[in-house]
Amino acid sequence: MTRFLTVGAAQMGPIQRSHSRREVVERLVAHLREGKRMGCDLVVFPELTLTTFFPRWYMTDQAEIDAFFEAEMPSNETAPLFNEAKRLGLGFCLGYAELARENGRVRRFNTSIIVERDGQVVGKYRKVHLPGHAEHEPQRPFQHLEKRYFEVGNLGFPVFKAFGGNIGMCICNDRRWPETYRVMGLQNVEMVLLGYNTPIHNAPAPDHDEHTWFHNQLSMQAGAYQNGTWVVGVAKGGTEEGIPSLADSMIVAPSGKVVARAGGDGDELVVHRCDLDAGQSYKRSTFNFAVHRQPDQYRMIVERKGAMDP
Amino acid sequence: MTRFLTVGAAQMGPIQRSHSRREVVERLVAHLREGKRMGCDLVVFPELTLTTFFPRWYMTDQAEIDAFFEAEMPSNETAPLFNEAKRLGLGFCLGYAELARENGRVRRFNTSIIVERDGQVVGKYRKVHLPGHAEHEPQRPFQHLEKRYFEVGNLGFPVFKAFGGNIGMCICNDRRWPETYRVMGLQNVEMVLLGYNTPIHNAPAPDHDEHTWFHNQLSMQAGAYQNGTWVVGVAKGGTEEGIPSLADSMIVAPSGKVVARAGGDGDELVVHRCDLDAGQSYKRSTFNFAVHRQPDQYRMIVERKGAMDP
Repeated sequence: MTRFLTVGAAQMGPIQRSHSRREVVERLVAHLREGKRMGCDLVVFPELTLTTFFPRWYMTDQAEIDAFFEAEMPSNETAPLFNEAKRLGLGFCLGYAELARENGRVRRFNTSIIVERDGQVVGKYRKVHLPGHAEHEPQRPFQHLEKRYFEVGNLGFPVFKAFGGNIGMCICNDRRWPETYRVMGLQNVEMVLLGYNTPIHNAPAPDHDEHTWFHNQLSMQAGAYQNGTWVVGVAKGGTEEGIPSLADSMIVAPSGKVVARAGGDGDELVVHRCDLDAGQSYKRSTFNFAVHRQPDQYRMIVERKGAMDP
Repeated sequence: MTRFLTVGAAQMGPIQRSHSRREVVERLVAHLREGKRMGCDLVVFPELTLTTFFPRWYMTDQAEIDAFFEAEMPSNETAPLFNEAKRLGLGFCLGYAELARENGRVRRFNTSIIVERDGQVVGKYRKVHLPGHAEHEPQRPFQHLEKRYFEVGNLGFPVFKAFGGNIGMCICNDRRWPETYRVMGLQNVEMVLLGYNTPIHNAPAPDHDEHTWFHNQLSMQAGAYQNGTWVVGVAKGGTEEGIPSLADSMIVAPSGKVVARAGGDGDELVVHRCDLDAGQSYKRSTFNFAVHRQPDQYRMIVERKGAMDP
């Protein structure tokens, strides 16, 4: 069987602090139109698509911080994106900073949503693996304060029935953790939508910088192969507020093979016609979990958080 | 800091059914001597080193099956290996079919052991992820009856203090499962010793055959990077009893980079001087588990064996 879903990885070039939501949404709409022209069913935008990657700054004024968050979705400023997608009959996945009110409490998450072709939000994910740090570290050339500005996601790694398949999401640093893909694999995920903002320079481990493209690709390829799923990795690229970031958006097949990737580091749509059934041969053979997994031997994965010497 | 361990991945060419244990042990001893000459502290042999890969045959005579197993280690036939290693002051890791008597019961495992430089067995592992099938499948060009001839390992994925570091083991199909490396990573593993016998042809999924080298490398690279550990992958190669197998032994650094690999598919020693501290920068930054892991979000990994649709 074949079950095709044509997906566009909508890489974004830099979004500077001076850029308004309106300007960004215009760029997203341009991606949608290009996606429509190229036969896409679904266009995937990066992590925190609507603003510059603000965790690079230490801020103490909550109003200044909250200006990077969305208190509603769609909002007045993002409605044109939803409207255009619905008009074109295209789905999309969008990452944004979410300001939620839950049980009378304000909460902030690094979030992504799946919007179906009729404009309805059919799935939400909140980033679990927040990288970086919570306190100001002035010795760094720039900050990575995700642990300060966001709470750890509280929705698990859900998989949704959408676009005729089983679709999951994760965000940026989540992609380096095999647990991320495995929890979705255990729900028969067929395509993982994954946006990222990754500075090339990693202050705590500068010796990793030369490997950053390799690590990005390796993580997504392994997650794809080991769960028999497509992975659609969508970057913010280019130099944003003086900080160069990774780009290298790519679409990875369930074999682990990279089948499409960005050529540059600006706004660029990378399109591939994906057979959602392509993972079946993996799910039925090498990675037939019901036949081969041994969860009793994996207990340490949930019983221990940090590593301990034997 | 640097803490060097020079390791030799002792790839083996085919071992035919007609080859005696004595002949095989002579080849292993030759590897040890070459390892000594090249400065090795430790030589790693493949899975089921001492015989041909017998799960390719359906056998019903238990005596015929048990002839491939070792009831003691060292045995008369393997003592020359232990003696030569001790004489040279070399450690080794050896895979073999283990016939054990536990609580008055005969049990059979696909096992590997770590032998320190003084000849003492300091670690044992029994393969957890047995691939293949338990019943005769005559439609296959050859069988893969590990699920018939072995029990699932009952020792977990232990990590041992040996050779001045934290050393773990896994066997063949274990390497495709991120759970394998993660359980060892949670014990601060610094080097994983991994032997394999992998037929190039995968009967249930022949469309994977063209990717078999890539999948082998991808699995080991991801396991290394995601846990900041060395991985020493040691193959049986060449055409054994008419069945071509993978070869491509390699040593993978904690960065995920392949730093040494076999050039051929016969007996070949691949040596690298490994800094056991090279993984520290990963363990302290990106993969500082205590800071970044979220075990509450991983429960499905142990609560569910097979995949289920959302």
